[in-house]
Amino acid sequence: MTGIVLAAMSRTPDPRLREIMASLVKHLHAFLREARPTEEEFETGLDFLLRVGKASGAQKNEMILLSDLLGLSTLVIMINNARGAGETDPALLGPFYRAQSPMCAPGESISRDARGGEPLAMAGRVTDLGGNPVAGAIVDVWQASPVGLYENQDPEQPDHNLRGRFETNADGRFHFRSVRPTGYPVPTDGPCGELLRAQDRHPYRPAHIHFMFSKEGYKTLVTQVFVNDDNCIAADVVFGATTALSGNFERLPDGTSRLEFGFVMQPGKRRLPRAPIP
Amino acid sequence: MTGIVLAAMSRTPDPRLREIMASLVKHLHAFLREARPTEEEFETGLDFLLRVGKASGAQKNEMILLSDLLGLSTLVIMINNARGAGETDPALLGPFYRAQSPMCAPGESISRDARGGEPLAMAGRVTDLGGNPVAGAIVDVWQASPVGLYENQDPEQPDHNLRGRFETNADGRFHFRSVRPTGYPVPTDGPCGELLRAQDRHPYRPAHIHFMFSKEGYKTLVTQVFVNDDNCIAADVVFGATTALSGNFERLPDGTSRLEFGFVMQPGKRRLPRAPIP
Repeated sequence: MTGIVLAAMSRTPDPRLREIMASLVKHLHAFLREARPTEEEFETGLDFLLRVGKASGAQKNEMILLSDLLGLSTLVIMINNARGAGETDPALLGPFYRAQSPMCAPGESISRDARGGEPLAMAGRVTDLGGNPVAGAIVDVWQASPVGLYENQDPEQPDHNLRGRFETNADGRFHFRSVRPTGYPVPTDGPCGELLRAQDRHPYRPAHIHFMFSKEGYKTLVTQVFVNDDNCIAADVVFGATTALSGNFERLPDGTSRLEFGFVMQPGKRRLPRAPIP
Repeated sequence: MTGIVLAAMSRTPDPRLREIMASLVKHLHAFLREARPTEEEFETGLDFLLRVGKASGAQKNEMILLSDLLGLSTLVIMINNARGAGETDPALLGPFYRAQSPMCAPGESISRDARGGEPLAMAGRVTDLGGNPVAGAIVDVWQASPVGLYENQDPEQPDHNLRGRFETNADGRFHFRSVRPTGYPVPTDGPCGELLRAQDRHPYRPAHIHFMFSKEGYKTLVTQVFVNDDNCIAADVVFGATTALSGNFERLPDGTSRLEFGFVMQPGKRRLPRAPIP
């Protein structure tokens, strides 16, 4: 059976598509031969995938979430980002990224919600592997609110709350104000939530801030910095947290938190941000 | 990475779900390690799957179609229906099945369209492996119209055109009138059509009639009978046609076609028809 399918696909003009699809068919057939699903089980699986597609929209992308929950997204990141000494760990882009968030002035606050939260001052620096500053890089920042929801999940938050883009200065530095992030559960109201419950898994991610650094001539760096005192770092539901990405979120006497973090970009191809779901 | 994901899933209370998901994760990770998709390629794949879900509805189920095009559906049928001598080959249920089609009297026509087509008289008999008649079995029949579309794809056809349910008599026999089926392309207006074009594959299925036989105490038999003179039988786009399911669609002098076919049901568990897409 597998040979017949591979033969039918063998005229694929694009050699890379031919290679990927042949590998996928081979491994999916091997899965079916090992797991031997009944016809009912198989239909349940297809129906689950269909519902994952239907549950995806502007608020969340359950297909990416499913990939995250199975460790696929993190594995793809690991495959594509063999990390040498001194390089910054990449992390998941995640299902809540929005392109085209507001461009902000240095030091501006990305908290656009009057309700605020525990204040945070973040100062970062972007260098290359040799320690030279990367000037003029776009720093895309996004995070969940103190109640653990991104603005596009939460009708009570203003548009683009806790999202913003900054530019690094001549010394590779950028800084902004925000609120201290909180850990949160991934969405559990859709098919992915059903899966987590059926697998007796908690839905929590450790508190973190998302960063995407891009500049022509450099490989786009997508990463996250985790709050060091979050006890979920070792049990991230999407397998994304690493100790190297644990940030020292220092609490000052006045109640403000302060985070300094250095990021390393490598030369390479700039990556385009993902298109929004229609 | 794979070990960490399997550990996170190891508390799954249902042992069968645990087994299936562990096998799936293992094989999907092996696929990623072999194909080494770039992050862009991987996102293109997830987006494709998402669009397959979004394109599915009452008219068609593109998720089942995708599974058909990758040979997964036929492989699952083969895994679950090890066939001995004399047994009827199973075939795909397909994406156009509708539950609860009209119950018909013996000999009734399932062509509910005044435009008609080339007339067909079908006579079948259902027996067990010992040749004994299976009486009182429900025979669910559905087929595409002479223009190659099922009624739920085609606003010009009346509701339930070329669909009907019959009951076998004391001798296991049933008969009905219809129109001679035509080969047709699977739907190519959605993501699955994009895939076929990218793989330089034709979209055609050989002409066939779908049958589902069910009776308490018997394993539900889902199959198709193909028109013997269709030159696509060896190149069915969904890998479903077999020579054993090639039916002798005899053309009589008056232009009517006549088909006789015998089906064999085995004792087992009756299978419930698939739920409709919400």
